[in-house]
Amino acid sequence: MVKAIMHGCNGHMGQVITAICKEDENIEIVAGIDLNDSLPNDYPVYKSLAECDVKADVVIDFCNAKAVDALLDYCETTGTPVVLCTTGLSDEQFARVEEVSKNVAVLKSANMSLGINTLMDLLKKATDVFAEAGFDIEIVEKHHNQKLDAPSGTALALADAINEELDNSYVYKFDRSQERKKREKKEIGISAVRGGSIVGEHEVIFAGMDEVITFKHTAYSKSVFAKGAVEAAKFLAGKLAGHYDMKDVIAAK
Amino acid sequence: MVKAIMHGCNGHMGQVITAICKEDENIEIVAGIDLNDSLPNDYPVYKSLAECDVKADVVIDFCNAKAVDALLDYCETTGTPVVLCTTGLSDEQFARVEEVSKNVAVLKSANMSLGINTLMDLLKKATDVFAEAGFDIEIVEKHHNQKLDAPSGTALALADAINEELDNSYVYKFDRSQERKKREKKEIGISAVRGGSIVGEHEVIFAGMDEVITFKHTAYSKSVFAKGAVEAAKFLAGKLAGHYDMKDVIAAK
Amino acid sequence: MVKAIMHGCNGHMGQVITAICKEDENIEIVAGIDLNDSLPNDYPVYKSLAECDVKADVVIDFCNAKAVDALLDYCETTGTPVVLCTTGLSDEQFARVEEVSKNVAVLKSANMSLGINTLMDLLKKATDVFAEAGFDIEIVEKHHNQKLDAPSGTALALADAINEELDNSYVYKFDRSQERKKREKKEIGISAVRGGSIVGEHEVIFAGMDEVITFKHTAYSKSVFAKGAVEAAKFLAGKLAGHYDMKDVIAAK
Amino acid sequence: MVKAIMHGCNGHMGQVITAICKEDENIEIVAGIDLNDSLPNDYPVYKSLAECDVKADVVIDFCNAKAVDALLDYCETTGTPVVLCTTGLSDEQFARVEEVSKNVAVLKSANMSLGINTLMDLLKKATDVFAEAGFDIEIVEKHHNQKLDAPSGTALALADAINEELDNSYVYKFDRSQERKKREKKEIGISAVRGGSIVGEHEVIFAGMDEVITFKHTAYSKSVFAKGAVEAAKFLAGKLAGHYDMKDVIAAK
Repeated sequence: MVKAIMHGCNGHMGQVITAICKEDENIEIVAGIDLNDSLPNDYPVYKSLAECDVKADVVIDFCNAKAVDALLDYCETTGTPVVLCTTGLSDEQFARVEEVSKNVAVLKSANMSLGINTLMDLLKKATDVFAEAGFDIEIVEKHHNQKLDAPSGTALALADAINEELDNSYVYKFDRSQERKKREKKEIGISAVRGGSIVGEHEVIFAGMDEVITFKHTAYSKSVFAKGAVEAAKFLAGKLAGHYDMKDVIAAK
Repeated sequence: MVKAIMHGCNGHMGQVITAICKEDENIEIVAGIDLNDSLPNDYPVYKSLAECDVKADVVIDFCNAKAVDALLDYCETTGTPVVLCTTGLSDEQFARVEEVSKNVAVLKSANMSLGINTLMDLLKKATDVFAEAGFDIEIVEKHHNQKLDAPSGTALALADAINEELDNSYVYKFDRSQERKKREKKEIGISAVRGGSIVGEHEVIFAGMDEVITFKHTAYSKSVFAKGAVEAAKFLAGKLAGHYDMKDVIAAK
Repeated sequence: MVKAIMHGCNGHMGQVITAICKEDENIEIVAGIDLNDSLPNDYPVYKSLAECDVKADVVIDFCNAKAVDALLDYCETTGTPVVLCTTGLSDEQFARVEEVSKNVAVLKSANMSLGINTLMDLLKKATDVFAEAGFDIEIVEKHHNQKLDAPSGTALALADAINEELDNSYVYKFDRSQERKKREKKEIGISAVRGGSIVGEHEVIFAGMDEVITFKHTAYSKSVFAKGAVEAAKFLAGKLAGHYDMKDVIAAK
Repeated sequence: MVKAIMHGCNGHMGQVITAICKEDENIEIVAGIDLNDSLPNDYPVYKSLAECDVKADVVIDFCNAKAVDALLDYCETTGTPVVLCTTGLSDEQFARVEEVSKNVAVLKSANMSLGINTLMDLLKKATDVFAEAGFDIEIVEKHHNQKLDAPSGTALALADAINEELDNSYVYKFDRSQERKKREKKEIGISAVRGGSIVGEHEVIFAGMDEVITFKHTAYSKSVFAKGAVEAAKFLAGKLAGHYDMKDVIAAK
């Protein structure tokens, strides 16, 4: 049974992780850290890590960038591994993460979803087989109408994972409406659909002669990141110092 | 039982239509017209309509533009309705079609597929409901890697059918990668995927709050146009002079 | 601007409807009714309709069966139309709904989602066209792993809507694994997929020769029923006495 | 450049393979074998392998069971590797295949499609990750209305590949309509949809909390098996004696 401290336990993601851990017999939250202590929890909640005297095998962090410095100090001093999910870190903080990971296990990943990271892993093998056999590669992603960027960061990350496998010899194609010509072999088409409140859907398509293979990931809520964080925590407990990411979690399964 | 003359009976589409009619007890091909008479058929084949003395209720045409002038003359003279599927007509020929349709029933449609035309019809009602309720509208089409144009003519026709229902107040959006902003309400996103030998797939998406409705058409071969032509022929037999299209076939069902 | 009373305003659905109305300039909640008055709202909240002296054009109800009797009394007495979304009514209450609807407009529907109800409407026309053209009809639904019944009530309602159009001459087929034979023409296959936390997905498939048309509805949260209720309220304000359902809302668009 | 003999060159699959090899610069058909010699080919055609004096690196076979005995003799005697795609072999012939594969490379696989075999490979890894993380596994397959068996052999093969990874501890569930209960954890639901002329579609679904990952294979024609055979032939040329299957082809990429 892995013992975890939930850093940012009373935020939305902290509560989702709390609920997930309650139903997982391999991990238990033994303490929470949050400035806001208005919510009832089954574990003691402290205002800061400094005040917390409960020992744990791992810290799960879904907090805010300001709290990350104290978090890294704590983990380095106590030798507690940390799953770092807070985004928006400064360059200084990124550098500090690298530094700290020499002394303790730190897991930080561009996307915490188990599904997306597994997909990324499988796509590499799929690309080896299908690209060599002449299949064309296309990505279609769908998100809500409030999203500012297109295509999504995850769609680009999927394309990059594929392209890396192809010696980065493919180019990305975002629009085909302005020209009249056949598809180039060495391109990855990326289409962005926007509408309603769609949380996030990514589809990678390998289209060959009379055969199409599609890998699709659908997120129904942001709690998929919570689920990934819990898997990461179970993986990270007891690990040697180093900078890990979700791919290591997948690879160990 | 409708009696039909198959104009261009030994071409690929003529043979597909022949096979479809054999299994349909409401229509029979009583004669074929083709310069090439090398294929065995259950009906007599003539080199031209002028040589053909078999009377029919309707002519189904899948031939080439050169043969259309003689076809229209024949239909006008004999008063035989015609399902005109040959594409690439000249402006003069289009004008002649209008002229002839004053004296005999002529059916000509941008897309002969029963599925696409039915979809187009249903989309109008769907648009009335969903657009008013604030849903966003997007179209994704997929075709083979040899296709020159993007988006497909059918995708644009679907968008036009929807936009007509919206007083043509929506604009089409082909690319979102060049800007960083939220989706505009009054746009229809149209994405074109190209790969392998995909015959044709069209998806119209209405995305609202926590709810997405998708209408999808998949063609597995060009014979869907043959199927549509046969339905059109059964509809057109016995009709008064006029210019009909596939929408009339659907509406009559 | 339609003025509405939200009956059960501080429940989950009441709050979702409150949020929807805030962004809709054609409807405004002018009062809420709830025993629980702990939540802040922009409108006055009363413990019962009896205490409420605010007049409205319509009542939206998402409460519990116990509160329905008083609700119906209020609506009948004051002549206020009501969108009745509470489920689990007793037979006596159903009878009372019929009685009351002779004097005031009452809207009650098996499924409040705008998408599902519109789909049901469109499927009738689609069935006319595709069944006659020899297409096979299949339904696939997907729900979470806690659902007790299979297939879902909505899948059966979709099948019933289709079958009604076919003079109820088709039979439903739930399992094909126990026999070795070709598909019968007059059957509607219904498959139920269960897994994870899928909220609800319904797919109606018309499969013909080389052509497949799919109508798909995906719900991402239960708030789709809230959206439907708001549309229903806007429709119902000012209507004559009678028993309405969501189909009437769609038809009026 | 691999030199291949096409055994059964004038059958449908033989001709499809001929067309594929013409466009592949890494393989060339140097001779064909067929009793029927009515078709024009770019290579010499012999009535039997005994008459053929052209040497090749590999034989591709898409013939009939009767011709397989002579084929195996030829391959053993000349030491020519063979991609054996003919189905319906007798038990004696299967035993002979095993015998011959001790002396020469023989590739024989349940399904020759590159896509399905690659999918099967990737599903093992996906199962490791997702099953352990508590995802439910479901398979939906779609085929034409003339198919006798349900579910398809390929769907069962996919389920078997997944179940093997789970120590065969899961049971297959074909029908959920006869009981009223929650989904069991250790089951793989398998649904069979039948309609129109659908060539073959297989969808493997991993459904977790707020996240669904789908692997989908769509075949548009039987030529996908031809494509797989060509890839197999390129792989097999020069290989040591042994019994190979498509998984080896994938693994080598």
